[in-house]
Amino acid sequence: MAYTAAVAGLGSMGMGMAKSLLAAGIETYGSDTDPAKLNEFTSAGGKQAPLIDVAENIDCLMIVVVNAQQTKTVLDSVFEQLKPGAVVVACATVPPEFAKALEAQCQQQGLHYLDAPISGGSVKAAAGAITVLAAGSDEAFTQAQPALDAVAEKVFTLGNQAGPGSALKSINQLLAGVHIAAAAEAITFGLSQGVDAKTTVDVISQCAGTSWMFENRGPHIADGDYTPHSAVDIFVKDLGIVCDIGHSSKFPLPLAATALQQFIAAAGAGLGREDDSAVAKVYANQSDIELP
Amino acid sequence: MAYTAAVAGLGSMGMGMAKSLLAAGIETYGSDTDPAKLNEFTSAGGKQAPLIDVAENIDCLMIVVVNAQQTKTVLDSVFEQLKPGAVVVACATVPPEFAKALEAQCQQQGLHYLDAPISGGSVKAAAGAITVLAAGSDEAFTQAQPALDAVAEKVFTLGNQAGPGSALKSINQLLAGVHIAAAAEAITFGLSQGVDAKTTVDVISQCAGTSWMFENRGPHIADGDYTPHSAVDIFVKDLGIVCDIGHSSKFPLPLAATALQQFIAAAGAGLGREDDSAVAKVYANQSDIELP
Repeated sequence: MAYTAAVAGLGSMGMGMAKSLLAAGIETYGSDTDPAKLNEFTSAGGKQAPLIDVAENIDCLMIVVVNAQQTKTVLDSVFEQLKPGAVVVACATVPPEFAKALEAQCQQQGLHYLDAPISGGSVKAAAGAITVLAAGSDEAFTQAQPALDAVAEKVFTLGNQAGPGSALKSINQLLAGVHIAAAAEAITFGLSQGVDAKTTVDVISQCAGTSWMFENRGPHIADGDYTPHSAVDIFVKDLGIVCDIGHSSKFPLPLAATALQQFIAAAGAGLGREDDSAVAKVYANQSDIELP
Repeated sequence: MAYTAAVAGLGSMGMGMAKSLLAAGIETYGSDTDPAKLNEFTSAGGKQAPLIDVAENIDCLMIVVVNAQQTKTVLDSVFEQLKPGAVVVACATVPPEFAKALEAQCQQQGLHYLDAPISGGSVKAAAGAITVLAAGSDEAFTQAQPALDAVAEKVFTLGNQAGPGSALKSINQLLAGVHIAAAAEAITFGLSQGVDAKTTVDVISQCAGTSWMFENRGPHIADGDYTPHSAVDIFVKDLGIVCDIGHSSKFPLPLAATALQQFIAAAGAGLGREDDSAVAKVYANQSDIELP
């Protein structure tokens, strides 16, 4: 029997994943509030229909929206129509407790649930090569397998119930956000000491102070190129989620909270849609430093 | 003519460097306030004498102490006795302005000065394989070359006058310190969300949230092994220097300042001599988390 997928949310990640499903020969419905996104997807061979009308035919619903609230809204909109045995693959960055609650709701209805936050960026999404931090029942993994094979280069199997996928995603975003802000802090600090940005990037990339984000985002700052690969607004959101989890768990996160303030300052300065490395402009503005 | 070196400061880095000079066949004097260190060095074939008595024979004086003040004290103690053409290789983490001032002082006396902070840790020091972030005149580099060849695996040539070496070292320590604290914050945060430390280390090492320090120090936390490779006190000192430079330059460093507070909290809890990854215990104590 044919396997039918749907992707709710055709943003920079969801669009690439939906097209990767098509490329794998899987019949795929796309859903988005933006007609332009829907047109782009149907032009690529995707199917378009109100999800509620086709929900009973869907084997795998991938929800690739921005947060927990949107995830819940999408799921609730088709919850009664999804067929028993279908799997809901929830890809947004959400609190682990939220993932557990949604899994329980799905299981009561005979649906499988995969706690499956994603990373890798839009380029990897378009190439069917994202990383999935996944947790869920064996049945959820089995049911999602054809879709995961189509969209992912690497799938971490983090447990047999929801929660750890979202937890690991939050841990990763905590580090990623702190490291981007730290790269911006270090490179602009270097400029204040007379070291040009390219020298800092070249030297530190070979020293113990390096990070994945330093090596990836540092050149954006050194080149003065803030074309958004991942936007400032994403870290305003994701570090916000991280800090909310810490808050509700009574776990203090001084570095994540500090980095969040720098991204909020960047968004407040009108840089929300620029590349997240534009947080360097916050540092530059505070200290009258001229960036490349 | 034979080349004679001296190493002032036989700590975990200086001792390894001094022994590497011996291993390269260079006659080397050692100096330290701790008689046990001097004995260790002479047992390894090193020479021992008050530096002031042998200064006129020294071609290269490597000063491997903990800060600017000690560097100045060592240099002043033999300044009048050093012979013209000798090179002073200053390896401590110091403010760039301090390095510039010391270079000027040396040049007035006909001495060469190499602004040459080091990194790599005690294991690399023992193997003659440290990294040197060096800046100075061509003559300073030439005069220091035999010693650099003996102690270093990599020498960055960062400019023809003092300053950039110390600046890059501060930039590196800013990032290294923030990344260690961030690793501790992330791993303990994961524990608060039910993710064991080993899983966090294994998964994040393969994700965009990784850093050199996360991969190096994370296993210390996951293994509960706080044997000091580099101590908490080092980052209390080095992030203190970084923040002092920022302060005097009127350059705000919110992440470095926050990380410094976490290392100060660790030192305040009596952990100053433990491995710097013991900053994780600050997070654990604040949130009633049990570390491995």
